[in-house]
Amino acid sequence: MSLIEPRTLKGFRDYLPEAQIPREWLIETAKRVYRSYGFLPIDTPALEYEEILTGKGGEESDKQMYRFEDHGGRKVALRFDLTVPLARFVAQHSNALGMPFKRYHIASVWRGENTQRGRYREFMQCDFDTIGTESIAADIETVLVVHDLMKAIGVEHFMVRINNRKVLNGILDMHGVRNHSVPILRALDKIEKIGPDRVIAEIVAATGMDGAAALQLVTKSGGFGLMGMQVLPGHAWSEDAVLRALDIIESETRTSETAQQGIADLRAVFLGLRTVGVFPAHATLDLNIARGLDYYTGTIIETSLGELPGIGSVCSGGRYNDLANLYTKERLPGIGASLGLDRLLAALEELKKLPTSRATAPIFVPWFDEARFHDYLAFTALLRKSGLGVELYPEPKKLKAQLQYADRRGFTYAIVIGSDEWVSGSCQVKNLKTGESAVVSRLDETNDALNPDLLARLRA
Amino acid sequence: MSLIEPRTLKGFRDYLPEAQIPREWLIETAKRVYRSYGFLPIDTPALEYEEILTGKGGEESDKQMYRFEDHGGRKVALRFDLTVPLARFVAQHSNALGMPFKRYHIASVWRGENTQRGRYREFMQCDFDTIGTESIAADIETVLVVHDLMKAIGVEHFMVRINNRKVLNGILDMHGVRNHSVPILRALDKIEKIGPDRVIAEIVAATGMDGAAALQLVTKSGGFGLMGMQVLPGHAWSEDAVLRALDIIESETRTSETAQQGIADLRAVFLGLRTVGVFPAHATLDLNIARGLDYYTGTIIETSLGELPGIGSVCSGGRYNDLANLYTKERLPGIGASLGLDRLLAALEELKKLPTSRATAPIFVPWFDEARFHDYLAFTALLRKSGLGVELYPEPKKLKAQLQYADRRGFTYAIVIGSDEWVSGSCQVKNLKTGESAVVSRLDETNDALNPDLLARLRA
Repeated sequence: MSLIEPRTLKGFRDYLPEAQIPREWLIETAKRVYRSYGFLPIDTPALEYEEILTGKGGEESDKQMYRFEDHGGRKVALRFDLTVPLARFVAQHSNALGMPFKRYHIASVWRGENTQRGRYREFMQCDFDTIGTESIAADIETVLVVHDLMKAIGVEHFMVRINNRKVLNGILDMHGVRNHSVPILRALDKIEKIGPDRVIAEIVAATGMDGAAALQLVTKSGGFGLMGMQVLPGHAWSEDAVLRALDIIESETRTSETAQQGIADLRAVFLGLRTVGVFPAHATLDLNIARGLDYYTGTIIETSLGELPGIGSVCSGGRYNDLANLYTKERLPGIGASLGLDRLLAALEELKKLPTSRATAPIFVPWFDEARFHDYLAFTALLRKSGLGVELYPEPKKLKAQLQYADRRGFTYAIVIGSDEWVSGSCQVKNLKTGESAVVSRLDETNDALNPDLLARLRA
Repeated sequence: MSLIEPRTLKGFRDYLPEAQIPREWLIETAKRVYRSYGFLPIDTPALEYEEILTGKGGEESDKQMYRFEDHGGRKVALRFDLTVPLARFVAQHSNALGMPFKRYHIASVWRGENTQRGRYREFMQCDFDTIGTESIAADIETVLVVHDLMKAIGVEHFMVRINNRKVLNGILDMHGVRNHSVPILRALDKIEKIGPDRVIAEIVAATGMDGAAALQLVTKSGGFGLMGMQVLPGHAWSEDAVLRALDIIESETRTSETAQQGIADLRAVFLGLRTVGVFPAHATLDLNIARGLDYYTGTIIETSLGELPGIGSVCSGGRYNDLANLYTKERLPGIGASLGLDRLLAALEELKKLPTSRATAPIFVPWFDEARFHDYLAFTALLRKSGLGVELYPEPKKLKAQLQYADRRGFTYAIVIGSDEWVSGSCQVKNLKTGESAVVSRLDETNDALNPDLLARLRA
């Protein structure tokens, strides 16, 4: 029989343990932080009716969606994000859920993207949202969650860049181009990537504005410029600078009530964040943040890493007026953000902040003295009962081969027990990271439990 | 615009928080136990080339598989289990992985099953396998993992029922029907569900044996009967009874070398398990365990709950000779088992052993005194810094409405701070489970940190 070539589809990835261990660590850290604010977990199906998903993420999402007919002839599709399923979910279960409803959802999504751009066709999203309240308290909390998450994963230099769609919309109003807000904001969103000239060209092409007006929109408008307010990645404005900037924009946008509301929101967010020490150290104003998605209506955020500004935002989101208007008449305002898992993992790897251990259990016990198998079983069971993870090698191979295996797997300790040690009641504890080694008793003085010194050494 | 009816596909489920919280708890518990033995996490794509998946799980799997053409015209399918992807994965990466390789994999699979039978079309599997060793140590460890898992989730009355395919195959040899082993073992596997008469009828239909021979095969063979050795659910044989049964079978199957090997394996497994106190309390011999899958070749296990025998096995698996022979010439023997997540959750719910908390953070703080919003922010941030999860209500609603919300969400504590408490430096700690309430200081004597008494109370 000829063999089938083992391979994955283009754009799809296997995660070997060295990649999956940090991925699980990051997901578990995110869960811990989400839970510490009372966010609740949900899950939804990978497959949905096509009509539930179509048209909700824009033309590009529609084109990329994996769709087919199931066994019952239903038109179905794989979800391409977690926001559309959330909207469907909340519309369907809103009575059972109660409002406000704070949920997190960590799951895979699928997009038939062009893999030339280094994009994957399957990736995991890691979202949290607060639904059913318009209170600015939820906006502040969203930033706090991002802050705590970055701290929890050991990132010290990061900045949550905050803007407000109402300010942007107010400025568009003042220029008489609010009806073109979608293409203009999408273009502005790319300003760091493609530069102001191409942004202006895109705006001219999409709206028919003349070039001079577009230039004025992008670079300055009545004495205050979007570009002029740009926050350099890694650079934090002082508290004073941010609050004065808000005063300036407020006075420059007096004619737009929408912009004035946006300024009030921003001020409330920064003052709240100041109370808990997050502003100005880890939050700042950035008028260049636009976010491409048209459903944002208020606060919008991105998160950049000071040491890797080029990597882009690792956690982004914003406030929306109405999450689920395609499925329900109930208005559901909310705010949420999404952690960019893959991007953050790549960044942490580059910054050498990923957990270095490639082993899930810290201790390795070689099966060295063949006849003593049952003694190894009993000893490793005792270690596990003390809360220590331990792997016993399954075969009585040569010690050297077993220790090579232990090295390769990245264990922290090896506990070697040969015939002599079985008789004398001792064991050799090798620290595989430092090369240090010590001989200690296995059991305590009464021979009833493990030697406390041994346990202390292994827990160090 | 007319609304789209929010709904899920038949056979697919939403998990609301009250269902997803215990599900995440069970998955995290399984991961903790798997890791404590050194199993390593992996992940593989949900979508694979159709040819990788077809024909590996038998006709039924093929019929149930979700398949379609992707954007590039490739024939693709959604995985229907985690074993076939594991085989493909190990064949593809065996050099990078190294042997022995112990992995766990917890992920969704999809089958277009007939939902009439109460089956779902999307469900999660929770597998662990040890690949690359034929040592019986791995068989023993597999049972230990199941044992530790049951203990970790708080189940006291459970029994890992162990058999060995070599014994069954030896008996089939002795009856001259080894060439019909697949339909016979599949029929035997259902003996508890459908009874011996229908098993005999199935065997007769599938093999053409005469009824008397089939009866003899099922009920007795040379003085020892499969049925006669049946373990009643919830009932543990004594150590002596199991070891004597092995002696009897050994002497009855002297003419089959295969059966003799199986007996030796079983004996080694039970003696190993005895050393760590798992046998006879939580492991026993059950000659009725056959497992339907044809790829098992040695040890096979099922796990029944003493208090819910009718629910079937909550953790099953077995040893195989060659995991990946469709993809590689490298022979990869191994052993693994799969936790029945949905079945176990249903069982734990019936036994009232699920965690009762529906909240992810234990503490609720109502926003009671509207003007003090920043003080609530600072206080809840301090609690989180002490490692306590806390939810601050996002709106200054009436206290009663906020406490109703807290009750509904299942918080353990509410910390109420009104205008008077803000002035006096105290807070009211309400235990929402017991109704008890106490007024305590918020800060310690130096006003620099939270009051240790308050923290102790909340951690109790």
